[in-house]
Amino acid sequence: MEFTAKQIAEILNGKIEGDENAIVNNFAKIEEGKPNAISFLANPKYTHYIYETESSIVLVNEDFEPQKKINSTLIRVPDAYKALAKLLDVYNSMMEKPNGIEKNTHIHKKAKLGKDIYVGAFSYIGKEAVIGDNVLIYPGCYIGNNVSIGDNTIIYPGVKIYYNTIIGKNCVIHAGSVIGADGFGFAPVQDDAFVKIAQIGNVIIEDNVELGALVTIDRATMGSTIIRTGVRLDNHNHVAHNVEIGRNTVIAAQGGIAGSSKIGENCMFGGQVGIAPHILVANGTKVAATGAISNTIKTENTAVMGAPAIEISNFRRSFIHFRNLDKIVKKLEKLEKIIEENNLTIE
Amino acid sequence: MEFTAKQIAEILNGKIEGDENAIVNNFAKIEEGKPNAISFLANPKYTHYIYETESSIVLVNEDFEPQKKINSTLIRVPDAYKALAKLLDVYNSMMEKPNGIEKNTHIHKKAKLGKDIYVGAFSYIGKEAVIGDNVLIYPGCYIGNNVSIGDNTIIYPGVKIYYNTIIGKNCVIHAGSVIGADGFGFAPVQDDAFVKIAQIGNVIIEDNVELGALVTIDRATMGSTIIRTGVRLDNHNHVAHNVEIGRNTVIAAQGGIAGSSKIGENCMFGGQVGIAPHILVANGTKVAATGAISNTIKTENTAVMGAPAIEISNFRRSFIHFRNLDKIVKKLEKLEKIIEENNLTIE
Amino acid sequence: MEFTAKQIAEILNGKIEGDENAIVNNFAKIEEGKPNAISFLANPKYTHYIYETESSIVLVNEDFEPQKKINSTLIRVPDAYKALAKLLDVYNSMMEKPNGIEKNTHIHKKAKLGKDIYVGAFSYIGKEAVIGDNVLIYPGCYIGNNVSIGDNTIIYPGVKIYYNTIIGKNCVIHAGSVIGADGFGFAPVQDDAFVKIAQIGNVIIEDNVELGALVTIDRATMGSTIIRTGVRLDNHNHVAHNVEIGRNTVIAAQGGIAGSSKIGENCMFGGQVGIAPHILVANGTKVAATGAISNTIKTENTAVMGAPAIEISNFRRSFIHFRNLDKIVKKLEKLEKIIEENNLTIE
Repeated sequence: MEFTAKQIAEILNGKIEGDENAIVNNFAKIEEGKPNAISFLANPKYTHYIYETESSIVLVNEDFEPQKKINSTLIRVPDAYKALAKLLDVYNSMMEKPNGIEKNTHIHKKAKLGKDIYVGAFSYIGKEAVIGDNVLIYPGCYIGNNVSIGDNTIIYPGVKIYYNTIIGKNCVIHAGSVIGADGFGFAPVQDDAFVKIAQIGNVIIEDNVELGALVTIDRATMGSTIIRTGVRLDNHNHVAHNVEIGRNTVIAAQGGIAGSSKIGENCMFGGQVGIAPHILVANGTKVAATGAISNTIKTENTAVMGAPAIEISNFRRSFIHFRNLDKIVKKLEKLEKIIEENNLTIE
Repeated sequence: MEFTAKQIAEILNGKIEGDENAIVNNFAKIEEGKPNAISFLANPKYTHYIYETESSIVLVNEDFEPQKKINSTLIRVPDAYKALAKLLDVYNSMMEKPNGIEKNTHIHKKAKLGKDIYVGAFSYIGKEAVIGDNVLIYPGCYIGNNVSIGDNTIIYPGVKIYYNTIIGKNCVIHAGSVIGADGFGFAPVQDDAFVKIAQIGNVIIEDNVELGALVTIDRATMGSTIIRTGVRLDNHNHVAHNVEIGRNTVIAAQGGIAGSSKIGENCMFGGQVGIAPHILVANGTKVAATGAISNTIKTENTAVMGAPAIEISNFRRSFIHFRNLDKIVKKLEKLEKIIEENNLTIE
Repeated sequence: MEFTAKQIAEILNGKIEGDENAIVNNFAKIEEGKPNAISFLANPKYTHYIYETESSIVLVNEDFEPQKKINSTLIRVPDAYKALAKLLDVYNSMMEKPNGIEKNTHIHKKAKLGKDIYVGAFSYIGKEAVIGDNVLIYPGCYIGNNVSIGDNTIIYPGVKIYYNTIIGKNCVIHAGSVIGADGFGFAPVQDDAFVKIAQIGNVIIEDNVELGALVTIDRATMGSTIIRTGVRLDNHNHVAHNVEIGRNTVIAAQGGIAGSSKIGENCMFGGQVGIAPHILVANGTKVAATGAISNTIKTENTAVMGAPAIEISNFRRSFIHFRNLDKIVKKLEKLEKIIEENNLTIE
């Protein structure tokens, strides 16, 4: 696909400076710019690249003031990063989408299929499953009995969805994720062995949720594990039985949320975060990467760090001292010696 | 499915207080009780809910003494939690199980299939694989050559089992788990590159083992990686080559056990725990979530925490001081100043 | 398969001590030796086993000097461990390899297939995908449109590879790994919700790369996520969008590398390591298990530990004091008391 500066400026409502016929067929980072690529400049740290980039077009913020000659055609927009996001999206939406039902699928006769869906080869759709309009189910997926999937949702290859799961509209679930496996529930019995607690609840995923690759969301013991509208979970996240994650919360890769915990709205967790079972985490909580929350956080918009996690500035101050503990202990020992040699004691 | 209080009391050998014809068709937590649901009360912390719950039936311990009027029908049992577990199990066992060999499977003519098995569509069973009676293999699984699976074992969708793996009876393996992939064995060669050590051992999983979704258990370099009877591993666990995990050990999600380590019996590990390679962990060891064991633990029934993990009460005491390090250092600096200003020195 | 000591000595250019007709059909660790097995002795710690082992043949280093009588036949080689590796490899290469295109595959008519490939049942190869010679694609894989896979590469069951991914020669990708899923890119919009940034870049994996089971490598937002020649990633690793990992770097299980970070060559990371986004990690960096690198490391061959990671000997010294913080604080309190009771103050 090729676009001219003029076409792009129209899509973005931007203002051209330079050749309105400049042609691009590709995106590139400004520091890796090439002829016929379009780049963007949003972070001032990267400004110096704009004077050297070979990209044919660069998106810049309206108020950008060049200090030197620029070879690229500029398109000025209110927010260069958002403009890029829009453009990527337009580009993406122009890509060919798969459609129709491929050969070698297994679709139960009692499944209900929406309009204009795609079901890839080797995908399995169980009894009384309900698939909304425009849903894409890539090859090798398993959609269990009585699962429901809302309109426009995309299920990438190899996703496994257990029975009774409910998934909303406009969701994206990346390859290999597993939704609705049994929660990890065992009751101890006398001889140190455990007996399994049957997990008969389900998983509910609301609208506009995106799950990365190889995410697991376990079904509830009773009731539902719930992922609210707009939640984003990166690859390898684990969500245990009966957890609830509030609207628009974003969790980076490899996080783990133990059973029955309730995460608030608009939280942001870094990578490899852990949340203990049966706790509450208030709206707007921020957890630095590898942090482990072991107790309920009641105050909204708290930022924490560490394992166990404590208030972030407290952690940082303490960690500086941790690095210096050897010096600190040496100082202490010196004081002890001074006091000893001066015969100071408790009388 | 509907049950009366009378039927449930019979299943559980319980004693009814209230309407023996009360009907339930669903389970609910006591705090989320609804008409026609059954709930249970085991934890005294939740006692106040029993006076408000809308659940039609509540399982309670024999010795429960109500302080107010209760609307629900009670069923008294020796242990309300275990009674619930039993009931969930009964309910679960009444659910329709898949059976037969679906179309579009690939079963090698030299594979040996037991009685009353289920093989879902798009599942692959290799040469000389042996599948026991009543085994369920959900869609999209791969059972490699010469794999053996014991009676009553359930393999959920998309599980991949490499050649020569041996799995016992009554096991459950959740979706997407990978058993028998190569161990991570590389020998350094001169030019900083590594040469792969072929991994020609296998994996042995004994009876009554449950593995969560997306678990990996690597095959041994030589010999076997062994998961003993009754082990439970939650989602995303990683077990490296030549590891052995002792009977009834339970490991929460996202744990990692490095190569050749030997974990004892009846251990309990929290989430995201890490175990170093080539070490022993004694029977009954407890590791708090995110703990990392870097050395052999010889004493049985030790509880540890931290990374690297140390004895748990030691960790907790030290961590309190860590939080307060800023204050501690300020105190030290004050002492230094006092001593300096009083001209105390080492002579 | 059976081999005599003579045959093995020829393969390894070794020197026999004992019965050149000794027959082996199996490998065993020296401490688990059995008749007709071959073992090796490389680590002096294990020397005492050689006097008791039942293995028929033991590979030993040229300079090994027995202190007692040995029953096994010895084969002396320059490096017993490397010799074992070679032997395992020879053994492995003699195992039957699958070949041909099985029934029930989905191969787009515009895909280009090399010579002597294997495509297992239920595998999917998209439009304009290019598969090199001798490639093995096990059952249940998904190879998206325009993916290219180099000669001799092995793709184990259930691997999912998104469109436009480029994979080199002689690579191994274990079961369930996901290559090319969307990077985790979201831009905040006014109402605390996020808008997805379309991820239109790709993944490039060079030659001789081995990825464990359930690894994820995300596609770049723009440009490429790049895994250089000789990289080894163990199970459950996560590599985010636009990351680059340098030649021959080895990462143990469950590591996570956040977006746009650049890892140098010949690095070695232990298990469960985390790398922050947008940083550089110099060539030869070593990270102890569970370490979390939060800032760029410029100096080559640094070893670090901890979360956040600091220089390893610094961490170890500080950690010893951390364990003893309770004693340290008590000492400090004693000094405070002495000073107070001696009426020392700042004037």
